[in-house]
Amino acid sequence: MKKIIKGGTIVTASGEYKADLGISDGKIAACSASLGNGDAEIIDASGKYIMPGGVDQHVHFSFVYNGSPVRGFETSSAAAAGGTTTVVEFVNQEQGKSITASIKDYERDRVAGKAAIDYSFHGVLTDASEETFREIPSLPDAGIPTIKLFMAYKGAFYHADDAAVFRSLQESREAGVTIMVHAENADVIDVLQKQLLAAGETSPYGHALSRPPWVEVEATQRAIALAILAEAPLYVVHVSAKGAMETIRDAAARGVRVSGETCTHYLTLDTENLAKPGFEGAKYVCSPALRTAEHREALWQAVKMGWLGAVSSDHCGFDWAFQKHMGEGDFTNIPNGCPGLQDRLGVLWTEGVCTGRISRSKLVDLFATTPADVCGIGHVKGRLDIGCDADIVIYDPRGEHVIINNTRLHSVDFDPYEGFVQKGRVDTVFLRGEPVVKNGAFIGNGTSGVFVPGKPYGAAYI
Amino acid sequence: MKKIIKGGTIVTASGEYKADLGISDGKIAACSASLGNGDAEIIDASGKYIMPGGVDQHVHFSFVYNGSPVRGFETSSAAAAGGTTTVVEFVNQEQGKSITASIKDYERDRVAGKAAIDYSFHGVLTDASEETFREIPSLPDAGIPTIKLFMAYKGAFYHADDAAVFRSLQESREAGVTIMVHAENADVIDVLQKQLLAAGETSPYGHALSRPPWVEVEATQRAIALAILAEAPLYVVHVSAKGAMETIRDAAARGVRVSGETCTHYLTLDTENLAKPGFEGAKYVCSPALRTAEHREALWQAVKMGWLGAVSSDHCGFDWAFQKHMGEGDFTNIPNGCPGLQDRLGVLWTEGVCTGRISRSKLVDLFATTPADVCGIGHVKGRLDIGCDADIVIYDPRGEHVIINNTRLHSVDFDPYEGFVQKGRVDTVFLRGEPVVKNGAFIGNGTSGVFVPGKPYGAAYI
Amino acid sequence: MKKIIKGGTIVTASGEYKADLGISDGKIAACSASLGNGDAEIIDASGKYIMPGGVDQHVHFSFVYNGSPVRGFETSSAAAAGGTTTVVEFVNQEQGKSITASIKDYERDRVAGKAAIDYSFHGVLTDASEETFREIPSLPDAGIPTIKLFMAYKGAFYHADDAAVFRSLQESREAGVTIMVHAENADVIDVLQKQLLAAGETSPYGHALSRPPWVEVEATQRAIALAILAEAPLYVVHVSAKGAMETIRDAAARGVRVSGETCTHYLTLDTENLAKPGFEGAKYVCSPALRTAEHREALWQAVKMGWLGAVSSDHCGFDWAFQKHMGEGDFTNIPNGCPGLQDRLGVLWTEGVCTGRISRSKLVDLFATTPADVCGIGHVKGRLDIGCDADIVIYDPRGEHVIINNTRLHSVDFDPYEGFVQKGRVDTVFLRGEPVVKNGAFIGNGTSGVFVPGKPYGAAYI
Amino acid sequence: MKKIIKGGTIVTASGEYKADLGISDGKIAACSASLGNGDAEIIDASGKYIMPGGVDQHVHFSFVYNGSPVRGFETSSAAAAGGTTTVVEFVNQEQGKSITASIKDYERDRVAGKAAIDYSFHGVLTDASEETFREIPSLPDAGIPTIKLFMAYKGAFYHADDAAVFRSLQESREAGVTIMVHAENADVIDVLQKQLLAAGETSPYGHALSRPPWVEVEATQRAIALAILAEAPLYVVHVSAKGAMETIRDAAARGVRVSGETCTHYLTLDTENLAKPGFEGAKYVCSPALRTAEHREALWQAVKMGWLGAVSSDHCGFDWAFQKHMGEGDFTNIPNGCPGLQDRLGVLWTEGVCTGRISRSKLVDLFATTPADVCGIGHVKGRLDIGCDADIVIYDPRGEHVIINNTRLHSVDFDPYEGFVQKGRVDTVFLRGEPVVKNGAFIGNGTSGVFVPGKPYGAAYI
Repeated sequence: MKKIIKGGTIVTASGEYKADLGISDGKIAACSASLGNGDAEIIDASGKYIMPGGVDQHVHFSFVYNGSPVRGFETSSAAAAGGTTTVVEFVNQEQGKSITASIKDYERDRVAGKAAIDYSFHGVLTDASEETFREIPSLPDAGIPTIKLFMAYKGAFYHADDAAVFRSLQESREAGVTIMVHAENADVIDVLQKQLLAAGETSPYGHALSRPPWVEVEATQRAIALAILAEAPLYVVHVSAKGAMETIRDAAARGVRVSGETCTHYLTLDTENLAKPGFEGAKYVCSPALRTAEHREALWQAVKMGWLGAVSSDHCGFDWAFQKHMGEGDFTNIPNGCPGLQDRLGVLWTEGVCTGRISRSKLVDLFATTPADVCGIGHVKGRLDIGCDADIVIYDPRGEHVIINNTRLHSVDFDPYEGFVQKGRVDTVFLRGEPVVKNGAFIGNGTSGVFVPGKPYGAAYI
Repeated sequence: MKKIIKGGTIVTASGEYKADLGISDGKIAACSASLGNGDAEIIDASGKYIMPGGVDQHVHFSFVYNGSPVRGFETSSAAAAGGTTTVVEFVNQEQGKSITASIKDYERDRVAGKAAIDYSFHGVLTDASEETFREIPSLPDAGIPTIKLFMAYKGAFYHADDAAVFRSLQESREAGVTIMVHAENADVIDVLQKQLLAAGETSPYGHALSRPPWVEVEATQRAIALAILAEAPLYVVHVSAKGAMETIRDAAARGVRVSGETCTHYLTLDTENLAKPGFEGAKYVCSPALRTAEHREALWQAVKMGWLGAVSSDHCGFDWAFQKHMGEGDFTNIPNGCPGLQDRLGVLWTEGVCTGRISRSKLVDLFATTPADVCGIGHVKGRLDIGCDADIVIYDPRGEHVIINNTRLHSVDFDPYEGFVQKGRVDTVFLRGEPVVKNGAFIGNGTSGVFVPGKPYGAAYI
Repeated sequence: MKKIIKGGTIVTASGEYKADLGISDGKIAACSASLGNGDAEIIDASGKYIMPGGVDQHVHFSFVYNGSPVRGFETSSAAAAGGTTTVVEFVNQEQGKSITASIKDYERDRVAGKAAIDYSFHGVLTDASEETFREIPSLPDAGIPTIKLFMAYKGAFYHADDAAVFRSLQESREAGVTIMVHAENADVIDVLQKQLLAAGETSPYGHALSRPPWVEVEATQRAIALAILAEAPLYVVHVSAKGAMETIRDAAARGVRVSGETCTHYLTLDTENLAKPGFEGAKYVCSPALRTAEHREALWQAVKMGWLGAVSSDHCGFDWAFQKHMGEGDFTNIPNGCPGLQDRLGVLWTEGVCTGRISRSKLVDLFATTPADVCGIGHVKGRLDIGCDADIVIYDPRGEHVIINNTRLHSVDFDPYEGFVQKGRVDTVFLRGEPVVKNGAFIGNGTSGVFVPGKPYGAAYI
Repeated sequence: MKKIIKGGTIVTASGEYKADLGISDGKIAACSASLGNGDAEIIDASGKYIMPGGVDQHVHFSFVYNGSPVRGFETSSAAAAGGTTTVVEFVNQEQGKSITASIKDYERDRVAGKAAIDYSFHGVLTDASEETFREIPSLPDAGIPTIKLFMAYKGAFYHADDAAVFRSLQESREAGVTIMVHAENADVIDVLQKQLLAAGETSPYGHALSRPPWVEVEATQRAIALAILAEAPLYVVHVSAKGAMETIRDAAARGVRVSGETCTHYLTLDTENLAKPGFEGAKYVCSPALRTAEHREALWQAVKMGWLGAVSSDHCGFDWAFQKHMGEGDFTNIPNGCPGLQDRLGVLWTEGVCTGRISRSKLVDLFATTPADVCGIGHVKGRLDIGCDADIVIYDPRGEHVIINNTRLHSVDFDPYEGFVQKGRVDTVFLRGEPVVKNGAFIGNGTSGVFVPGKPYGAAYI
């Protein structure tokens, strides 16, 4: 053993127990009631919880709005600081280039050597040609078993019509590629946006008015119908509306292979945030839009009951000073997306575990295990099983502190959870056995992350 | 009294009873246990059923496929011969012309003086501009309280995207205009058509394969979602899939104002017809496609229980010799639509009433009363109430005969019910008090039909 | 013609129209745009609505609580005064006597010559023996096509266990007898009553606490399951809970032959009435108990949409001075039931029609037509069809007045609608062609009612 | 380490991985990529699967029918031989004795020193008195956090009416006691039994006819309603009907805390077995009755999707020669219940895992982990977590063999799976670290089992 974590309580997706955990060669090597110290480095976890490092299956380090890019992988130490040791990035296919090449080029130019944590990729299909559809079955060869299509965003090059979603589903079926969708009705949003602007509603709250819950319910129903027609599984990202969740739940109950995730902010923030005075609401503009408290509570029930299986951050590092302000006077120009990479675990712990809404085991499942399975990396990530990567987070449940942005490492000038009172904290994080967070502080070099190829036939296929 | 129908059994949507029926000035003037003869013409209806003349709310006398038009109003005596005294025609908006003007021009040029029975119109919105949407509230002024949009038919000028459906619903709401939709997913059909042709499936049966039930279920769900978003009622025409019917039924049970019709052929024909050898199946190509027996039986339950409120013919007079053969070797070129105008009552009577699936009162409701209400003409049509137009059909339940096309007046060279053994027959029909069918034979001049302006806030709004 | 009602608007279950109505030999004899006066008596109905006389399918003139009987048929002029011309009475089977004999004896001794309006009967099965079950198929021979079982009231002789309900359903199936149930879980109510009393809750509000909505939902589900097992239709009386209504609606949507009624008070009163200070709430003690406003509004939607088909009064004439006071200090001894026979039409008109919740036609359907069909008397009652009994109510929509008990004819010393502002009034009522109400006042002799034998295979069987 | 299992693949409820497993002091002590041998005994598990020992939460060693008892704990080595290391026995409360005393006496007299595997108990409430209900909150003090009530079996002393179920639920709520129900409608079964016998249907197949699926659906609905009324969780044992499963699933989706198990035989046998010629079907008489293939497949979907969380054996050792034959000529006298204790794992592996219906992890969850949680013993049983009891089964997937009764240790003269071709076999079993099965053969002394007290607030409460 090179390192031994002693005295803590191990939490897995199906239970918890006290044991020592040994690390060797970057892997989980041993678990025992009492491991002899030998020459190992000893980490004392007394009174703390030992969990698998988080897998954040929904992050944006490469998104560009109006020519202005989000903060990139250089800021990924924020993930580590928040207990997340693997992120899965959505990479837009470049027009005229294959999905695989788009991802490879992006990785080479913008990720390799710049990632503080391990990473994998979802392709985002944007060039809806037969050539692209026929590329889908080969994606797993490149370690990419998932692609996403945007049903929303009328007029954007990345908008996908029903034919594109359907063809992708058809091609994915035999290959074990999981099709993910951003489910919102693009046409209705477009009509409502124009009507709201014409009516003088230009403020951030217009964002919620232009994307009512039923635009999400509709697209979710439609995507499921397309999946039924194509006889393929489907995964719905960032489910925010109660009705969309129920649509997924009820389809699954009829035997349809459909599942989905929600995000930290849909569980904890709501339309009140968008309604803040002045332009402040712009900080909370993401899509789908934040919902009312009724939806929020329904989503907590959904994650508890397993109707949605994962909670991601949908982290999107647009800044406030310049980028969010592009939409001042016209909410439709506010870049969609909020940071939150560093907040996921602390917020879930505080609002989920400490309130009794979910157990610690369920938190681990939502935060690490199921996301790993969804992305086809569950054989090495998201678990503390012997032989898995020694990605470990030690959470200290004691104490509490207020989230303030100047403790965030995301290089964004605001945080949507500013002022949130977090119970406990991320104490220590290991990435493949090496400490990247110690005593609550990031100590990594920010460059040690590597690509984790995903396997096909992920959780959606089970 | 000018005319008295004596000795028959009157059937209404809510019951039946024996009475004499008096006609005066083209109106139902009296109903009595025994009307004195006076100088009235006496019609003996002993042993027969007296029902309101049928309202066929879904007919096509103006449709054009590939430059080739269906048989027009000149052939509308077929309606009368089948017991239908009012038809409601779908008139496509001409590009660059208003809906109202398109209808008025059509009526002036192609209908006035050529109709054997009374008529009303649905506008079909094809020019999806703000100008058109803003015309919608004024349509009732022209007696047009209903418009339809085609969600199907990708690439056709009359295809409507979600924005068009949504905007129409928004404009309809306050004006009492009922939005109708042809609900099928255009994209999926387009993909499947191309794949089937590429795979060598060119026969009429390919039509069914390219339009599976879920393309209808999906579009029905979507239209309902758009109606919920627009807070407007919705009407779904020619419901054929069990799942689509259930979607409507369940939405109504949740309080959504949505209703719909099915058609004679969906209740009585099925995919076996499309599978007939050679090109014979082309006679049964209509959209949505014919379904399997399971769907058919579910639709009978739906009309019995009131989950669908009307049965129309969707009559579309393309001929076999030339028009249907446009699609030989490529099912996607077979003009969609079948004749059936003359068959609706006889087939419903035989397959519905004589089998015990529905009562005579329910038949009257489906055949005449509810369609009249849907189209806003229930104050004069579809009922035998005092003061209503004396549109009357006397049905003789005795005997049976085989339907053969050379007894049809539709000027089409085939009939989808060829060989069907009909029980009973249409004996006598009055149009506004004047006999147009006598002893089973059409005796009208074929030109006495007039326009019946519809009122807004039809059945969908109740 | 002996009498002609001129100038009014006739309202039927499926529409309305202006016409004169002629009466002859106690029957509806003619309906005409203009009937010649001849030597007929002319009744001017200008500005008024002409409707079929009401059928109240749920009344109690024979119920006895703790040896103390309700007001009997001597008080049935209250029905006439309220526009109801036929009542259907629930007659308890006497122990050791057949259902038929129990009814015949009751009619002979307590009804014949004492009824102000026509009447029919439901048997109430209380002697759950094989002998009784085997009597069921013969009931239609005596004009009794309906029986009821009480699933509620643990310990009472009329309580029916599941075996009794199931056996009755089995026997009813082939015979066309409609099984009706009072659906509440007797055991749970019994437990809760004892716990409430033990906890010192003795007031009338305890009645609601001891009969929460789910005791009704449960029994409704159970009765439906028994009907499915017996493959027989089922009718649920006095549906009061939203969940019970939804259970019926959803079972019907799955093809189960189940339907039901609600009552005037469940549509208009609520738990606030039970919570009145002192013992006042006892006036509103009936079973099932009054519900909250949420349930009330759901029931309005249900009657509008046809999920429940009839509204009855469940009239039960226990007085306040003595009978209701039997339960002072112990709500379980308050006799269940409220008067309301005279109020049904006025209250439905005011709260249903005048508020826009239902149309006049729907009111007629709920008030007269469907109840007649349910009880197998639709061929003579509940309609204004030619040949039907000339039971007619002329309602004057003008003016309004406050309901006060001293204008009620029920001989009960209170009325639950005391103080209700009724819009319009019952102006004139004919029973089989003879006036029993004129200018708002009862003018009958109170003895002209006759038995109306019901036919089997009522509305539940359709 | 005292013992080390090397070279196998560990399967847990949430994944699988290769590791060595160390046992010390009867506990799981270590898990490691490679454990040094030291002086430990080495067990080679190469090519085999290492799983937690099974928890069979539904067995009957104490049931008595007509004075004739099932085989008792003396035969519990059959459990060990089948990979089950803990059983949870249903102990009937003796009339006039408390639940706790009934269990304690039973354990002392009939279990202690006679059990081959560890055991826990469910109380069966039979004496439905207030005294008994008030005992419920104290049950966890005796390590009994679960009780069952029989809604079925009219007339039997252990039959529970709705009041008993409701009162038990009320008392359980605060105490964390899980109420379990055998959900079948006793009245309907009783009626049908009598009718079938009267009609001459005396054969074992009459058992299925007398207990159609809806008697189970009904009672399941009812139990859920009672749980809603009592605001307490509910657990439904041996769910066999598709509709009952859907009822549980849908209630859970509405937020009701209800869950349930199914049994090996409902997943693999069906009504065909009951229809075997002669009296052979009696071997398969258990309650609820075996269902058709449609139900069976729905149950596989249910366990895969998590709608039912556990699979038990419902083992009941009545013999064929004498006990089953009590019902020859009258199926209502056939003792209900089949053996199956030894078959659960092999059958689930063969029909579940080898067919691809469920994963190995899901098998472990259904077979061990969730049952342990349901019974409140998940902190020591049903897992391979460090510190848990070293109850371990090593399954060798290679080879196949035919199940024949003379290899069963249950001392019953037949096995319902006779002739079943099992893939793989139980190779080795440890009970608290001591081997009880080696090389497929039971080697225990049959007396080493001890009582495992359960904790309150089991899985149903989560």
